Amino acid sequence: MNQNYDFEQEFIVRDYECDLQGIVNNSVYLNYLEHARHEFCRSIGLSFENIIHKGIYPFVARAELSYKTSLKSCDKFVVKLRVEHSGIKYIFYQDIFRLPDNKICLKSVITTTSVINGKLAVADVIVKAIEKVVEQRNK
Amino acid sequence: MNQNYDFEQEFIVRDYECDLQGIVNNSVYLNYLEHARHEFCRSIGLSFENIIHKGIYPFVARAELSYKTSLKSCDKFVVKLRVEHSGIKYIFYQDIFRLPDNKICLKSVITTTSVINGKLAVADVIVKAIEKVVEQRNK
Amino acid sequence: MNQNYDFEQEFIVRDYECDLQGIVNNSVYLNYLEHARHEFCRSIGLSFENIIHKGIYPFVARAELSYKTSLKSCDKFVVKLRVEHSGIKYIFYQDIFRLPDNKICLKSVITTTSVINGKLAVADVIVKAIEKVVEQRNK
Amino acid sequence: MNQNYDFEQEFIVRDYECDLQGIVNNSVYLNYLEHARHEFCRSIGLSFENIIHKGIYPFVARAELSYKTSLKSCDKFVVKLRVEHSGIKYIFYQDIFRLPDNKICLKSVITTTSVINGKLAVADVIVKAIEKVVEQRNK
Repeated sequence: MNQNYDFEQEFIVRDYECDLQGIVNNSVYLNYLEHARHEFCRSIGLSFENIIHKGIYPFVARAELSYKTSLKSCDKFVVKLRVEHSGIKYIFYQDIFRLPDNKICLKSVITTTSVINGKLAVADVIVKAIEKVVEQRNK
Repeated sequence: MNQNYDFEQEFIVRDYECDLQGIVNNSVYLNYLEHARHEFCRSIGLSFENIIHKGIYPFVARAELSYKTSLKSCDKFVVKLRVEHSGIKYIFYQDIFRLPDNKICLKSVITTTSVINGKLAVADVIVKAIEKVVEQRNK
Repeated sequence: MNQNYDFEQEFIVRDYECDLQGIVNNSVYLNYLEHARHEFCRSIGLSFENIIHKGIYPFVARAELSYKTSLKSCDKFVVKLRVEHSGIKYIFYQDIFRLPDNKICLKSVITTTSVINGKLAVADVIVKAIEKVVEQRNK
Repeated sequence: MNQNYDFEQEFIVRDYECDLQGIVNNSVYLNYLEHARHEFCRSIGLSFENIIHKGIYPFVARAELSYKTSLKSCDKFVVKLRVEHSGIKYIFYQDIFRLPDNKICLKSVITTTSVINGKLAVADVIVKAIEKVVEQRNK
């Protein structure tokens, strides 16, 4: 895996994800990105369900998406992800590459945060897990 | 309203609901039917959220869908609904007609039931509300 | 693979497919079934795109779905499929089993047909491919 | 209507649009925004289908979304839209307000462009329609 990313998740386009224009609808990319983030979180011990049970409510505060190349029916692709912790934010840099030619399809920055006891705040359990990932990457 | 139906909900096809073939994807009709059922339930005082808060978990046990005419981009249509109570089931007959020509697009029977305290059971609050609707229809 | 099925496709539930009740929304099962059908068709040389380019427009005429056990966040499952050709219909028996305990989640019969030159008709290329599968199964 | 916007489209949240957390899934906002854009375009004589038939392929090049307040089951809301033409871009400023309290839910900038004869280019028919809207607003 490229050193700039912490996680990769492969997908295949499903026909029902394509729209009138014969390409993946632009909203579906947010589904791909969410699924890759949740799989990444589980891979570092952070299950979305467990986090919510602890009273931590993570949510997306901001999404910036640059669409580069449209994905089509049956295309294979990979979502690559890098995470950063900054103040009360957990920031995910997520890029999508078509396979096998690695053509860039989407570049995105997904800024998330969490609500604890009704207030915007980061959760220790999340911050520690993320810092461990960042440490590992910079080795 | 036709005497055979208890409720009507109008919709317009949204472009993102159409797929590669330029028609509404067959799964999306279940979304339309669910939204019409929930709006009907609210119209007779049964909010989906309130029902769940009372420990009643309604769910779809069976769906039978006959696709007659495909809906397309920008089509207007109406979901018409008739409800019956039978044993531990609440049965919804839901038909979709394109507007303004009233061409039949879908005929369906959606059989629902509910779980209360971990067991399949009907809820008094739901049965009473449905029986009132049936009474009204048969007047 | 069980001798009663011609094809299997494994999936994992994605969080965005779950609804308010914390379970996979009933419409999403039709997405799973469609993706499994299209993957099966490709595996026997019938690409959905190629079929349309030949002027053959397949569509779902009828869907019967029996919901047995709800799928939840992160559940793994398999869609198993058996196909039959009957008159102007291609019929898909599709069942969903949760993994690894093989609990049945959904039983379904998806009846499809096709339009060629504006008329309901089966396509030779599809019928031949399906008959080959049926032959293989009955050996 | 507020002088800063060119178009408004009202919606109601449908239960199937909500996810595990009981709120509208963040990808669904892109569906709302697309539907509002397409309805706006139709209102100024630009049908999405007609545009494609003319060989003009519009697409979203960039989306920036700031999530402010989550929409919930049954919430009513309005998408308000302002359009600008700039070089080879058509830019849509789209904000979502909950009704009836007008609380801001989402602020977004959706940058679109089009492909004509395989090249990035604006289409005269679109530019003229947009300029008419801008003129009207500035009166």
